[in-house]
Amino acid sequence: MKAMPKRIGNDWTPTDSERESANATAIGRLAQCAPVLVGVLPAADVIEGFKPNMIFTSGPTLPWSAYLGGQRRAIIGGALYEGLAANADEADALLARGDIVVSSGHEYGCVGSLAGVTTPSMPVLIVEDPVSGRRGYCTLYEGDAADRLNYGAYTDATRRNLDQLRDSIAPALDKVIRSLDAPVELLPIMRKAVPMGDELHSRNTAATSLFVRECLAGMEQLDAAEMRALAGYFNSGDYFFLRLSMAAAKVMADAMVGVAGSSIVTAMGFSCREFGVQISAFPGRWFRGPLPTFRHQKIVAPHTADDIEFMGGESVITEVCGLGANALAAALPLQKSSGGSVEALIAMAEEMYAITAAEHPQFAIPVLNYRGTPLGIDVERVVTHGITPLLDIGIAGKDGGQIGGGVAQAPLEPFLEALEQLDNR
Amino acid sequence: MKAMPKRIGNDWTPTDSERESANATAIGRLAQCAPVLVGVLPAADVIEGFKPNMIFTSGPTLPWSAYLGGQRRAIIGGALYEGLAANADEADALLARGDIVVSSGHEYGCVGSLAGVTTPSMPVLIVEDPVSGRRGYCTLYEGDAADRLNYGAYTDATRRNLDQLRDSIAPALDKVIRSLDAPVELLPIMRKAVPMGDELHSRNTAATSLFVRECLAGMEQLDAAEMRALAGYFNSGDYFFLRLSMAAAKVMADAMVGVAGSSIVTAMGFSCREFGVQISAFPGRWFRGPLPTFRHQKIVAPHTADDIEFMGGESVITEVCGLGANALAAALPLQKSSGGSVEALIAMAEEMYAITAAEHPQFAIPVLNYRGTPLGIDVERVVTHGITPLLDIGIAGKDGGQIGGGVAQAPLEPFLEALEQLDNR
Repeated sequence: MKAMPKRIGNDWTPTDSERESANATAIGRLAQCAPVLVGVLPAADVIEGFKPNMIFTSGPTLPWSAYLGGQRRAIIGGALYEGLAANADEADALLARGDIVVSSGHEYGCVGSLAGVTTPSMPVLIVEDPVSGRRGYCTLYEGDAADRLNYGAYTDATRRNLDQLRDSIAPALDKVIRSLDAPVELLPIMRKAVPMGDELHSRNTAATSLFVRECLAGMEQLDAAEMRALAGYFNSGDYFFLRLSMAAAKVMADAMVGVAGSSIVTAMGFSCREFGVQISAFPGRWFRGPLPTFRHQKIVAPHTADDIEFMGGESVITEVCGLGANALAAALPLQKSSGGSVEALIAMAEEMYAITAAEHPQFAIPVLNYRGTPLGIDVERVVTHGITPLLDIGIAGKDGGQIGGGVAQAPLEPFLEALEQLDNR
Repeated sequence: MKAMPKRIGNDWTPTDSERESANATAIGRLAQCAPVLVGVLPAADVIEGFKPNMIFTSGPTLPWSAYLGGQRRAIIGGALYEGLAANADEADALLARGDIVVSSGHEYGCVGSLAGVTTPSMPVLIVEDPVSGRRGYCTLYEGDAADRLNYGAYTDATRRNLDQLRDSIAPALDKVIRSLDAPVELLPIMRKAVPMGDELHSRNTAATSLFVRECLAGMEQLDAAEMRALAGYFNSGDYFFLRLSMAAAKVMADAMVGVAGSSIVTAMGFSCREFGVQISAFPGRWFRGPLPTFRHQKIVAPHTADDIEFMGGESVITEVCGLGANALAAALPLQKSSGGSVEALIAMAEEMYAITAAEHPQFAIPVLNYRGTPLGIDVERVVTHGITPLLDIGIAGKDGGQIGGGVAQAPLEPFLEALEQLDNR
């Protein structure tokens, strides 16, 4: 890895005006995209090419043998949940033979939280760009339960919880959404939530609450049992909106894909082994590197930093869209759950301004006098400044379950490689 | 008015340890008080002593002839709405004769927004201290309509809107609240909303949304028409929670009343003429002075500062409890609606720390690394520093209706007089 000058500031001027123009085009497309939520249906019913023997998981696809720990357990759990195997050993054998196919969901428009396991029968939030019809998908928040599949657990409790999401929550939510006058516009909620302390990755308290208010008008369609189930689900934590933020971010990020010569990041995601980056100029191509490291984190006792395990994660698609760590200075309450200080959160925003090509026209940071969040991570700026994207992530423990939250930092390698490929073209 | 040294800081030590001990007692009582919402019923049914010919309005009670402008119009509107008179002239005559009695609601536990007109048939939020059973009351938010009684308007639209509140919204909301497992605990909502940018006076977006989520579990009791009405009401703006914040603040402030020797402010409120202050040592006694002046304000065009009219206001009970202007540094989004800058909002918090005896144990300011809001306005500190309380208020226009928001500052006179009385005792 090359030694890089690490400097912060806006005193650097890009030398390649053609690239800057391509970048402006890419970011302009994102800024024009106004995703809406149209419904909640089983993944296989709406995601084209999602075959019955497939399982999506986080990060650039690895050979089965490379999946480790919680992510491996979650994929096996997904296979069992889907009824593709009778037990873990059989699932392992089928996965090894390729009879069950593991794939990054990104290629199918589907992003996943942590291990990110999405199976064909799981309900997904369907978010759409109303202009192009392009869609993004994400499964539903599993609630506050300890035994969450995406944190590497698969128990009877996990299965019952997934059943409840599929058989009760998703149909009720779908009914509510479809009985509203129009699909739910997500940008107005997100724009309002950011100044209320949500960076829409690790914190979604405001957006979850604002979304519930949007749903009220459709709730008269529910019977008492459906109403009770949905009310309980919405109030089982403050994370419901994260999955909407992710699906919306996927739709917005995909709007930037395929601008010739653009060095803007269009996807980031990681598995248990690798961190991957895609840029606008090279649609669908992952540039890969080692796992992120932590800037700061807050681990809930009795756990310690020794218990941290990377199980994958594609929620960093939010950082691609000016949210997550890019909006940390708007989310001062994260001091409480993820550590840091006001000064540190503002300093991190400054770093992100240095490596982004624009400021978000709608997501604004009150403590910076409503400056737009840093938008459009540019691999050239990343390499020039030697500063990689920050990632505002939930932390999984080795034994499964969430043990904390923190701010991680992406490796430099994928950005170096992407820039090299772009320069050599 | 005496010239006062104006200095900010915590370098001043109170000389009277007995007074400080009394103040600690008063503030300790507030800190122990955890108000809950028990229901929404017609004012006359629940407020003891509220006779059919009475009208509550904001501020220390004035003789009828002294009420001016919007506050006078609102009181006459209240008399007409209640059917106490057939027309404005008759109402005026009955009010002049004392056949219709105008009173400050404060003595009855009832606080009002702006003109603060509460009539016997109007529904009020019933907030209770579950330990003492003491109650506070406040009418419902009138919605975003231009013709609001409390901004000095009384038209057919005003009447229809008040009818809708009384006949549709209040009964539905009461049904929801009473079908929950327990009365709604307000402190947890308020504690969560403050770091989300609500100072719970001029901004209530987070608390309104969080309150709606608390209501979800009770909504299964509503039929479709009730559900639709309540959903429309909750989404008619972001101010619903203000009235709950006021009623809760009244209950908490009243917990501090009557500690011998205490110089802590227990009530503030103003009419169209006067600003009034009560302190713990002198229950029920108003110390009066001239109207507040503005520190900064934001007036919505085509209106200008020339259109500003003081029509009264008791929402400043929130400032008494560490909210409102005392929590401005938590409410950075108010830059957008009420003017100011991040630096100004933080500087104003520093001023309020100088004149308060404590920090709120639950309401915290993220940008100040979760320091508690300034709590317990102390008339001795006010006089010593020559700094009076800031008031984060909505601004009414001469022609009725809200024309903006801003930060006003209380007059010094009532604080001087209260301290003099206390020192002379």
